[in-house]
Amino acid sequence: MGDLVSAKGIAEGVSNSNWLVETTQARFILTMYERRIELDDLPYFLGLLDHLAVRNCPVPRTIHDHEGAAFRMVEGKAVALIEFLPGVSPTQPTCAQTAAVGKALAQMHLASQDFGLSRANTMGFDNNLATLRGCGEAGLASIHPDLPAMIGPAEAAARLDLSGLPVSNIHADLFPDNVLMLGPRVSGMIDFYFACHDTMALDLATTHAAWCFNSNGSQCNNALSDALIEGYESIRPLEKKERTLLPEIAKGAALRFVASRAEDWLDTPDDALVTRKDPAPFVSRWRVYDNHGADMFA
Amino acid sequence: MGDLVSAKGIAEGVSNSNWLVETTQARFILTMYERRIELDDLPYFLGLLDHLAVRNCPVPRTIHDHEGAAFRMVEGKAVALIEFLPGVSPTQPTCAQTAAVGKALAQMHLASQDFGLSRANTMGFDNNLATLRGCGEAGLASIHPDLPAMIGPAEAAARLDLSGLPVSNIHADLFPDNVLMLGPRVSGMIDFYFACHDTMALDLATTHAAWCFNSNGSQCNNALSDALIEGYESIRPLEKKERTLLPEIAKGAALRFVASRAEDWLDTPDDALVTRKDPAPFVSRWRVYDNHGADMFA
Repeated sequence: MGDLVSAKGIAEGVSNSNWLVETTQARFILTMYERRIELDDLPYFLGLLDHLAVRNCPVPRTIHDHEGAAFRMVEGKAVALIEFLPGVSPTQPTCAQTAAVGKALAQMHLASQDFGLSRANTMGFDNNLATLRGCGEAGLASIHPDLPAMIGPAEAAARLDLSGLPVSNIHADLFPDNVLMLGPRVSGMIDFYFACHDTMALDLATTHAAWCFNSNGSQCNNALSDALIEGYESIRPLEKKERTLLPEIAKGAALRFVASRAEDWLDTPDDALVTRKDPAPFVSRWRVYDNHGADMFA
Repeated sequence: MGDLVSAKGIAEGVSNSNWLVETTQARFILTMYERRIELDDLPYFLGLLDHLAVRNCPVPRTIHDHEGAAFRMVEGKAVALIEFLPGVSPTQPTCAQTAAVGKALAQMHLASQDFGLSRANTMGFDNNLATLRGCGEAGLASIHPDLPAMIGPAEAAARLDLSGLPVSNIHADLFPDNVLMLGPRVSGMIDFYFACHDTMALDLATTHAAWCFNSNGSQCNNALSDALIEGYESIRPLEKKERTLLPEIAKGAALRFVASRAEDWLDTPDDALVTRKDPAPFVSRWRVYDNHGADMFA
């Protein structure tokens, strides 16, 4: 892949280490996986990137070694070399941008349907319920007084019957951080480390929760929301059953971040250097979906 | 400077934040200074880069704004845009590399002699003594049993008469981390945030301590050492007085890192995420210089 010209450790990824590596030929992201779970799932994550890249989705290709391996072990840790993609994550998305993200997401869903490997969603509605229960009512109340009341909604989400909804391999975490854009164009979807086989409507709902709200989650920007959904449907129109269930799925999607952030909050010491993410803005999103979801996704 | 194409937070600098920024025209390092002291000295640090770059030293140029300012304030913090330079910091330097570093250092010393601004060395021998005394004998002993005995040598270093030695603006922290290389060529000297006006021999001694030892500091690699000094002298031959004093100056240079690492060690809680640097390898260097310095620099 050429001679080494530059290598900088970059601040990306929560559980892995990354370097921006330049050679005389091209630029790459070198990722070192620090957690066991990622190693087991690496053939799925990296294989999905290759599958999507070949189908012209804007995702980084993985660079295989001379034996064809997509990753190799270095001092007991898995290391993969991944194509560098240009682009900047939007901080104040425009409608043109959420429309483009909706399109790219739908294209990814269609392109990944025939991917040969599968991975269960470890952040599904059942898992969220178990996570919230594991925090305990007292634990949840210690974070924010509104949190214990989210266990009931999490039970409702876990009871949802999603059978019969169309499935594919989904990104499952398509926050702005994980999208690179050049102006209105999606130049890269990255960080597929929550990707799994699940209902496509869940991925759209998660993306909606991630892109269409103000920072405290109290307000949905309807223009961004409409643009995202129209963009998505310009590539893959939603089925009637998906559209009907979308408000409930969106509530469940919001609860995923309530649950995972609450768990991380309780697991992180008060004086740790790591900044804890507040679950409350996703309680707010849940409320917006509960009050207005039917109109929003009509 | 073109339209933004990419921006990645990079892991460089201890007290400032850095992004690798790419535009349609070029690549840059965007540095945000987080500490007050750096802000006061910024005209010196950035001005020195410009002064050296114009004189063909391998240092990054600073990008001035339309009003000619080398930095500007963003939300109360100083921000500077600096040229990106290719190259990789060597982990196992070769003799060709230490020779090239010696040459680049000497070129820098000659080129910076007529720089118009000045900054005092805040890590001089007097400061090191004060820092070690500030740690206290008990504090030093709590880090390593050999440390309290370094106060005497620090007193001796502070008593050294360096008057009459040739001075210039020096880098003062030219560790391999702060040098970018492409093969045997120095492509960049970076991180001038300890630069100051002081004796050039001190800079050579500091560079020697940084490049010519094994990792625990117990052994000097004579081939690397000879190559570094020969490279330096191929550009600027040492004066007789410098050569005579070099063993003592090198002992003082080693004590600087004993002192600053000891202070940081005591200031950093045991359970902090930041890795503390062990002062002991610089006690070992001091011993090597004490025992063999006269031969080494003969």
